Amino acid sequence: MSADLKSSGLEGVVAGKTEICSVEQGELVYRGYEIHDLATNATFEEVAFLLLIGHKPSERELADFIAELKDHRALQPPVVDFLRAAKPMLASGSAVPMDVLRTAVSIAGNVDKRSQDISHEANLAKAKRLTAKIPTMIGHMQNVIDGRDLVAPDASLSHAANLLYMIRGTKPTEEEARIIDVSLILYAEHDYNASTFASRVIAGTLSDLHGAVTGAIAALKGPLHGGANEAAMEMLKEIAVVMDGGGSVEEFMENAFASKRKLMGFGHRVYKNGDHRAGILHALGRKYAEGKGDEFSRWFDIGEAVQKIMLEEKSIHPNVDFPCGMTYFVMGIPVPQYTPIFVASRVTGWAAHVMEQHANNRLIRPVSEYVGPRDLKWNG
Amino acid sequence: MSADLKSSGLEGVVAGKTEICSVEQGELVYRGYEIHDLATNATFEEVAFLLLIGHKPSERELADFIAELKDHRALQPPVVDFLRAAKPMLASGSAVPMDVLRTAVSIAGNVDKRSQDISHEANLAKAKRLTAKIPTMIGHMQNVIDGRDLVAPDASLSHAANLLYMIRGTKPTEEEARIIDVSLILYAEHDYNASTFASRVIAGTLSDLHGAVTGAIAALKGPLHGGANEAAMEMLKEIAVVMDGGGSVEEFMENAFASKRKLMGFGHRVYKNGDHRAGILHALGRKYAEGKGDEFSRWFDIGEAVQKIMLEEKSIHPNVDFPCGMTYFVMGIPVPQYTPIFVASRVTGWAAHVMEQHANNRLIRPVSEYVGPRDLKWNG
Repeated sequence: MSADLKSSGLEGVVAGKTEICSVEQGELVYRGYEIHDLATNATFEEVAFLLLIGHKPSERELADFIAELKDHRALQPPVVDFLRAAKPMLASGSAVPMDVLRTAVSIAGNVDKRSQDISHEANLAKAKRLTAKIPTMIGHMQNVIDGRDLVAPDASLSHAANLLYMIRGTKPTEEEARIIDVSLILYAEHDYNASTFASRVIAGTLSDLHGAVTGAIAALKGPLHGGANEAAMEMLKEIAVVMDGGGSVEEFMENAFASKRKLMGFGHRVYKNGDHRAGILHALGRKYAEGKGDEFSRWFDIGEAVQKIMLEEKSIHPNVDFPCGMTYFVMGIPVPQYTPIFVASRVTGWAAHVMEQHANNRLIRPVSEYVGPRDLKWNG
Repeated sequence: MSADLKSSGLEGVVAGKTEICSVEQGELVYRGYEIHDLATNATFEEVAFLLLIGHKPSERELADFIAELKDHRALQPPVVDFLRAAKPMLASGSAVPMDVLRTAVSIAGNVDKRSQDISHEANLAKAKRLTAKIPTMIGHMQNVIDGRDLVAPDASLSHAANLLYMIRGTKPTEEEARIIDVSLILYAEHDYNASTFASRVIAGTLSDLHGAVTGAIAALKGPLHGGANEAAMEMLKEIAVVMDGGGSVEEFMENAFASKRKLMGFGHRVYKNGDHRAGILHALGRKYAEGKGDEFSRWFDIGEAVQKIMLEEKSIHPNVDFPCGMTYFVMGIPVPQYTPIFVASRVTGWAAHVMEQHANNRLIRPVSEYVGPRDLKWNG
């Protein structure tokens, strides 16, 4: 196919309006609140409420919301059945956790009694249920992979702490819980990114919330999107192998540049002068790794060396996926679950956009420029 | 939410280039061949080859392609397991067939050994497998709904004839097989429609083909898109009830206009002077219905009365979903399977677009206009 087939990817094209999030060079804002403010002063549950319901919760509203999420953590039997059946799929590599999560969410829709109801009230109820259940899907999936009993959700734990608990089977420290909490806050929403845009295109046909989220998960999987946090960590592991063999970060980077290798976790379609989220997570992750010892902080040493070279040689900044990979790794989370954890957070943003789309819907249907053959006759 | 949140839906915006299909006021073209030419002279298998591989097949190429499709009609056990487990979901209404098909395709991806390989060659192999399997998913699902044994694919039948055979359990007549075949040709491709655009947005993150098709199915479900063929038929059934009670089509339409009811199967984002495909299918469907007797041709009488009023009162033409609904109904296909049959055809177009996107990829990521609150402080 000809090179000029390449599309502009709608870069800079305003595809619609939103009251949910503002992504600009200087700042990232969720419904009026700047991301540093939220990462410092709010919890993920508060941010989820803000995104889904539209305002900062009162104490009472927050307590009810948290209770509702906890009530809905358990999975419906057909979802659990599928997660158990997925073991050979994951073992053979025909599926990665993001693929299994896509199917699990689709089944959760198939058994949701309000699946067909796209009223705002039904969408909100479904969004809360799905937000509550996705960490359990991830946890159970990892338990199945590890061949252990399914770890039941613990109602004494926050959303973030319970997620990490179900994956690892051990209760997280306060510091660990807060780091996961902050990462979920940072990942929750990002205006018309590719997966959110996919969810709006799907919702724009007046299709349902679970379908829109299923499609969004498929989009987030890609290495040019959510999959970057896994790809970034895989690269650091490669570099460590090079270093263990006597090589250096500089050497690895030189080779990467020479072979025009695309380095994941760097650059951003919108942010050209750096991603506000990266620094927040990097600082928390580095401090945590240092507390665990040199074996762990080494990853941040390598990561920082990579960042320095990228900035000096290519003037490209890391995005949030870069420190996320290192931080989750130090925490002992299996790499293929990094993007599913991103889903556990972004589902709130997707659902907010689906509701906004449905509330004032117009079919999203662009046109294309045809550059193929013309005037052929089948029997000519 | 304020009314000015409504987006333009990217109407008229060129989102990219394509060599696959041209949709213009005057004509619909698949890779250079006009739709009337294809509907008259080609079979669905030939059109599927044209879309997926890029040129009209030679005799030998076609024979190989047909043999390959037939070889892959059987479903993998986890897909069959899910279709059986879906019976209570479909019975309770928490899932409709489009939702079950979305999950079935997602699982087919989970067990496809080349699921993670997005090379052109792997994508093409997966596209053929999925095209072969979707009719079997639809057939088995309907068998499960009907509480009968699963009807195995019949290798003596064409793609279209086998699809109808598996759904109904009886071999179609030559006329029935040709009508389904033509409907599949008409539905196969339509440039950057909402579901295809969703598949390109997903593929544009370098995610995989099954994920992109899963998201596209979610989009096609909506009544503003593929779901319109079901909605159109449901409306005709409503009108028949009104008429049986002594009312008239005119009366029904007057009420519909007065209540600003959106009538499905009419109008099109791109075609403003009529949909070329509608007339082709209407003529075939009417002739077939007349052959079956007044009880059947009645639906076309009602449909034509509705069309006449829509054109006179609103200057809006029917689209292909309108005659499709009536034709499938006369054929005895359960209404909730109309959009799944649309999938059985459009999967070829989606896959062609996914391959085109991957061959020359750029992330599809527009921006939004933020119209929400500003400068709020969490603890302010």
